[in-house]
Amino acid sequence: MNEIKVGLLGFGTIGTGVAKLLATNADLIAAKVGAPVTLKKIADLDITTDRGISVPAGVLTTNADEVLTDPEISVVIELIGGYNPAKAFVLKAIENGKHVVTANKALLALHGAEIYAAAARKGVEVLFEAAVGGGIPVISALRGNMAANNFSTVFGILNGTCNYILTRMTKEGVDFADVLRNAQELGYAEADPTFDVEGVDTAHKLALLVSLCFGTRVNFDDIHTEGISSLSSVDIKFARDFGYKIKLLAIGKRDADGVEARVHPTMIPVSNPLADVDGVFNAIRFTGDFIGPVMFYGRGAGMDPTASAVAGDIIDIARNIMTGIGRRAAPLGYGDNAVVTLPIKPMGSIEGKYYLRFSAVDKPGVLAKISGVLGKYDISIESMVQSARMAGEEVPIVIMTHEAREEYVRKALDEIDTFDIITQKSRLIRIEDNLE
Amino acid sequence: MNEIKVGLLGFGTIGTGVAKLLATNADLIAAKVGAPVTLKKIADLDITTDRGISVPAGVLTTNADEVLTDPEISVVIELIGGYNPAKAFVLKAIENGKHVVTANKALLALHGAEIYAAAARKGVEVLFEAAVGGGIPVISALRGNMAANNFSTVFGILNGTCNYILTRMTKEGVDFADVLRNAQELGYAEADPTFDVEGVDTAHKLALLVSLCFGTRVNFDDIHTEGISSLSSVDIKFARDFGYKIKLLAIGKRDADGVEARVHPTMIPVSNPLADVDGVFNAIRFTGDFIGPVMFYGRGAGMDPTASAVAGDIIDIARNIMTGIGRRAAPLGYGDNAVVTLPIKPMGSIEGKYYLRFSAVDKPGVLAKISGVLGKYDISIESMVQSARMAGEEVPIVIMTHEAREEYVRKALDEIDTFDIITQKSRLIRIEDNLE
Repeated sequence: MNEIKVGLLGFGTIGTGVAKLLATNADLIAAKVGAPVTLKKIADLDITTDRGISVPAGVLTTNADEVLTDPEISVVIELIGGYNPAKAFVLKAIENGKHVVTANKALLALHGAEIYAAAARKGVEVLFEAAVGGGIPVISALRGNMAANNFSTVFGILNGTCNYILTRMTKEGVDFADVLRNAQELGYAEADPTFDVEGVDTAHKLALLVSLCFGTRVNFDDIHTEGISSLSSVDIKFARDFGYKIKLLAIGKRDADGVEARVHPTMIPVSNPLADVDGVFNAIRFTGDFIGPVMFYGRGAGMDPTASAVAGDIIDIARNIMTGIGRRAAPLGYGDNAVVTLPIKPMGSIEGKYYLRFSAVDKPGVLAKISGVLGKYDISIESMVQSARMAGEEVPIVIMTHEAREEYVRKALDEIDTFDIITQKSRLIRIEDNLE
Repeated sequence: MNEIKVGLLGFGTIGTGVAKLLATNADLIAAKVGAPVTLKKIADLDITTDRGISVPAGVLTTNADEVLTDPEISVVIELIGGYNPAKAFVLKAIENGKHVVTANKALLALHGAEIYAAAARKGVEVLFEAAVGGGIPVISALRGNMAANNFSTVFGILNGTCNYILTRMTKEGVDFADVLRNAQELGYAEADPTFDVEGVDTAHKLALLVSLCFGTRVNFDDIHTEGISSLSSVDIKFARDFGYKIKLLAIGKRDADGVEARVHPTMIPVSNPLADVDGVFNAIRFTGDFIGPVMFYGRGAGMDPTASAVAGDIIDIARNIMTGIGRRAAPLGYGDNAVVTLPIKPMGSIEGKYYLRFSAVDKPGVLAKISGVLGKYDISIESMVQSARMAGEEVPIVIMTHEAREEYVRKALDEIDTFDIITQKSRLIRIEDNLE
């Protein structure tokens, strides 16, 4: 093989980055592969907008089939995003014996099993480093050098938009809505930010990490997903007083009882390295039975870092092609039949520590009523803060619990929220003290 | 191939960890490779000491040739360390067509080129993830998913013993000698700690990182190497006052003028994530032209994390064997002829900021004399601190410089140290403000 030809579906921001990287670092890549890697075709519905890079005549097409059926193209890069037509294109590429590189976490989180099975039948690789953490090489590390470990936990700060907003809320003491508006003006948040700020994007990425770490398929809808839009700057301030920062954390755990997979605002100790991950940066922390704790940190999004991940996957596949093999390993690193489907533990059964904030009228006996209900549900109090009293006015009462079972915590809050003295719905934020 | 058989040279701490991992996680590894991986032979001069794990009869031998010549063994794991007989064994394994996995940074830093050339001739892999950063998968990331980047910098905290000592000196304000003694009692430092505390181990690891990052061979003796044994707790305290922490940093840089590779105590801003890497943990931070800054963090040594890295390399090779290929990529990730030898810039030509501490008799005019010499050598002062005056006694004068050329800084210090008013040799610590 004296040249590896690849085709690109989707010429948006990331696609442009990939085209730029393959051109800029062509010599470097050729040195690492042993042959040039050439971008032969780019398919996109819009082939007129100037992307700021020059593309040879005949490379651009509006017809995806020109990529999917070209016998010279051995690797198809899917950067369209979303479910349709991305899924049909990926399956057709596989059907035509082409290896696939994709950054599409939504597609793989929901339809991964079907796509991986198709790839197994045809003996092609499906690589997706760019789907999690931008350029940070976590997926290849899990499939590759960390593969000898049984992992017990994965924690991730996986969405740059959320982390940017939380960082500014923390540093400036401002409210969610204000930071979001400013982030939109600066281009750090989409016009419709729902997918990011409600945690859906983070949950897609968690689904992939959980599959790789624990060798298990998960039903995406079973991942408990809470975003940051209802977070109050008051809670961020109280968190700091107790020695915590609030991050939108993707959490995966596995023990003998099963698998946890959840996304929600989480209080983590300020002393943990994850607490220092600020702005648009991403970080992922694993604990394996031999490697112990290990953390990866870098730019989790953006044209260039994501292109780095896509190009790394292309090099991986190109090295296979150069040595004459179809594929070396299944997408999740496990043999195709070794991946089991395990249920995710229901949130009610989770045990953890909780931050609870009650808004109550400041009257004698309020605290006795609240703590009475908590006691009834076997929830013991680690510490409590009641702000300065202004008789008859609303005051926040903050309680940090010891380990408690989530279903009892929720029942207690529901019961407390029926009291006349409670002026607003009580708030609950989960605490992860030990990120191992 | 229905079974991959490996042989182990060296049954010390790491070797025992590898044997334990291959036994404990045998099913997991088989699922990831598609066949069982079996440890067929272990060679060590001492086969009587109980390592706390059971080894089947006939596996242990004192004769390395039983590993090196066994036709069933396809992967030889070298964990003897040092140059001899490790080098002869590795070359013989390659000559016999066996793939090699090693944790031996000293061997590769000095004899890598010869070993890689032999591997190229025989078409076998030489993998060495465990040589840098214990279990942290940086080597495979550089060879693999990050391979599409031109790297401009690499910064590493690569020696757990040094970082443990520096962390305690920083937190407790105690002196080097006291912490070292205690670290030796606790088993965190060797009886003869020279290799670690004088920076030699860090320099070996830097040599490997520089080769991988920049695609260049370096002459190990050209790496400027300074350890931490002459660091004073006074300097650590002053560093904190200026917003810095002192770390033993491995520094690699590449620009159009050439390559820098150096190991020395370095002041880094407390706000940089590397400053938070405490105790026996390691971290490595890279900047690539597309990926941007990326950092890896984890346990940089110890039986289990290092075994994780060795086992990851074994899985990598086993997947090649299962797909019927000899090797996929050269040890440094570049084609064998694409690695060039570049000279390392001499330290005198380095430009940077400096912390200078002078011990002077407290007399009028002292500062004028010192700053006069600095001015003569084109070294401009960013800030200065002179401690409380006690007339006639010795006082420390600390100066932080703007960017200056090292050879001029050294000349200035040599000249200043000839003055009568100077009571001790002046101290110089390099500052890295921008770790990109």
